[in-house]
Amino acid sequence: MSKKQIYKPKPVSGFPEWLPEIRMIEQQWLDHIRRVFESYGYASIETPAAEEIDVLTAKGETDKEIYTLTRLQADEDSKKEARIGLHFDQTVPFARYTAMHFNELDFPFKRYAMQKVWRGERPQLGRMREFYQCDIDVIHVDNLPLHFDAEMPAVIYEALEGLDIGRIQIRISNRKILLGLLDAMGIEDTIPVTRTVDKQDKLPANEVIQLLTTECSLTENQAHKIITLTKVSGVDDIRAITPENDQMREGIEELAFVLDQLSHLPDEAIVADLSIVRGLDYYTGTVYETRLLDIPEFTSSVCSGGRYDDLAGSYINKHLPGVGISIGFTRLFDVLRHNGYIKNTRKTPTDILVILPSDNARTLATDTAHTLRENGWNVEVYHAPQKIGKQINYAEKKGIPHIYFPDLGEFKNLSNGEQTKIDAKAWIKKIGDD
Amino acid sequence: MSKKQIYKPKPVSGFPEWLPEIRMIEQQWLDHIRRVFESYGYASIETPAAEEIDVLTAKGETDKEIYTLTRLQADEDSKKEARIGLHFDQTVPFARYTAMHFNELDFPFKRYAMQKVWRGERPQLGRMREFYQCDIDVIHVDNLPLHFDAEMPAVIYEALEGLDIGRIQIRISNRKILLGLLDAMGIEDTIPVTRTVDKQDKLPANEVIQLLTTECSLTENQAHKIITLTKVSGVDDIRAITPENDQMREGIEELAFVLDQLSHLPDEAIVADLSIVRGLDYYTGTVYETRLLDIPEFTSSVCSGGRYDDLAGSYINKHLPGVGISIGFTRLFDVLRHNGYIKNTRKTPTDILVILPSDNARTLATDTAHTLRENGWNVEVYHAPQKIGKQINYAEKKGIPHIYFPDLGEFKNLSNGEQTKIDAKAWIKKIGDD
Repeated sequence: MSKKQIYKPKPVSGFPEWLPEIRMIEQQWLDHIRRVFESYGYASIETPAAEEIDVLTAKGETDKEIYTLTRLQADEDSKKEARIGLHFDQTVPFARYTAMHFNELDFPFKRYAMQKVWRGERPQLGRMREFYQCDIDVIHVDNLPLHFDAEMPAVIYEALEGLDIGRIQIRISNRKILLGLLDAMGIEDTIPVTRTVDKQDKLPANEVIQLLTTECSLTENQAHKIITLTKVSGVDDIRAITPENDQMREGIEELAFVLDQLSHLPDEAIVADLSIVRGLDYYTGTVYETRLLDIPEFTSSVCSGGRYDDLAGSYINKHLPGVGISIGFTRLFDVLRHNGYIKNTRKTPTDILVILPSDNARTLATDTAHTLRENGWNVEVYHAPQKIGKQINYAEKKGIPHIYFPDLGEFKNLSNGEQTKIDAKAWIKKIGDD
Repeated sequence: MSKKQIYKPKPVSGFPEWLPEIRMIEQQWLDHIRRVFESYGYASIETPAAEEIDVLTAKGETDKEIYTLTRLQADEDSKKEARIGLHFDQTVPFARYTAMHFNELDFPFKRYAMQKVWRGERPQLGRMREFYQCDIDVIHVDNLPLHFDAEMPAVIYEALEGLDIGRIQIRISNRKILLGLLDAMGIEDTIPVTRTVDKQDKLPANEVIQLLTTECSLTENQAHKIITLTKVSGVDDIRAITPENDQMREGIEELAFVLDQLSHLPDEAIVADLSIVRGLDYYTGTVYETRLLDIPEFTSSVCSGGRYDDLAGSYINKHLPGVGISIGFTRLFDVLRHNGYIKNTRKTPTDILVILPSDNARTLATDTAHTLRENGWNVEVYHAPQKIGKQINYAEKKGIPHIYFPDLGEFKNLSNGEQTKIDAKAWIKKIGDD
């Protein structure tokens, strides 16, 4: 095979990939999140990357972002095949999965999903076309205890807190409070109002009020009342709201219950924020958003979700209420990476490099490596009997923390230069006991 | 939202998904394989699901299997975007990755990859359109020590052996031996011959000889000589072959070296098999296939690979020899699952269900669960203060092994019915010490 032409491939825009040292951190993060999810009894499911187009477009709104799949050399047969596309979130596939396997699942069904999803949006920093989401949801038949609405923030706080990215703040509301108030006011077309309220983050209060009175045709009084409501925070102030109907009362009680259940978390970790409305019509009660208080570069919600009335009504004649929350993992990871918050020191999982002093010592080196591996270490044998300095240099370049000289029975800690004469097995025991 | 029409989605053919209890086993398998890969110092990389079509089709042969991606509602802008498709293996993306990040990687570069790949082939049992591959490769610049050819089977043996799927047999050859012989015979068009030799598994020897003499225009004598060679096995018999040229001599020495290095493994685990040729022109030296000796339903190679001359010659003007091996994970998993070899008992990672005796005990139950979690257990609190029998029934249905009564300070092992009065913290310590 002669070397004809070199084709220089470019990165495909919006499809990120990391160097090994960054990927190691990504894996540690994903492992940690998974561990927390499982510690609360969430079971993993993994759905295919592709779903029928009819499933993906059932809700109608997001079809412009969908990647459809076509076989490059489709034949006559393939015309009979289902039209499929890549999933753009994990909720639509979860609904389809739950409906399809309903009789084989046990409820309440606690599931987590950590998969890549794809959206054909215009890429920019923190918005990719391929990215991981980390979701948990609990689904039950007919009734789902409110207790689970309080579990979501507890799990997410633990998952994010363990990533060492500063203070986490989960902001919680309950849509029934605002919707109840709108109902009491006789406002039927609620979507423009909730959409406007959602802008409070970006606009000053007087502009929001102006939008409510002009575009949503509310009176000044109504607008002020709404804005006043959405400024309430703290469990005592929530309880002090005078409900104007049952819906409001329910929302207040639910939110107070959820906040009470989370009182063991640090004060600033859980905050009531009635301005959060999210999703406009999917969520029906509790809603969540999450801020990173110490990462000014990350301005949006890193983890959002809420309570919904019915997961899979389009696919199955069962009433399946649920509550769920989703970490936009790759967006979080990429923004932090980009802004230098992620420290990496190792390019390999190798803990110990076994030095190869000579070709004759190959068997000794390989056997030593084997023993070390049996004791739980990740071990490489250097590949050629080169000068020791070159072998050490390899370890240092890759960030391997220890080297071992099998012929001398000596090991060296490369971070502090400490060199100790010690039998491999004894050393293992010593370190293993730490 | 009124329940209008129920749309019953069908599974998309060739895109498998598992129930939670099967997914748990799949995760255990993937975790184990990853642990073994890392214990030998392989670093993870993960490439995007999609590559430029030009990258995917560079080798020309597999384009009919490629899924291309199109945005469902592509706009004018999108016409300027690169044409992309889903990767059909992990080698093509690895070559592109290595070329693109060459200056940031350290060599020898040991990488593993465990991702899904997609092929638009006709689905059947054990052949999916979406499946996991688990690959390891080592790449070096200009020269890669033969030592790594021996590492591949050692890693793979450990990875597969730990899955508890019976005896593993890795069959090894070196293509230089057969190709050297063909060269010595003056046979230039080697591909039809190697392709015919590859059929020895399926055809009796006399039919293979007939094909060699008719379709490949060899003499009877040549055909017999080839078949005799490919029947040689065992390191002593390999060494006893009289090489007819340097290429044959090199192949014999390399294969003998690799077998020598693997002599610590069980006799039947590593077998020389000169009939293995694989890949026809990609591999240039050592080649591997893997059989499951105790799984008659699995008739093909579960894990294959070999040595190649140059990973990324189409993308970079560097000579990058490598050796790699790949487990066809989903195919393996699905055939074993389908044939009842995979035993699952748990539908959830939960180790302990904390009983909720009454609503008043909610805080006690949640606190107890928290303490148990801090000690490394996966714990759920039952969601409602229902009858104890119902709560135990939930644990049994999901395969949760233990329950704990926080009010009584009693725990029960559901597998043997043993009930013990013990403080949660003491119990944790006791079990944790096992």
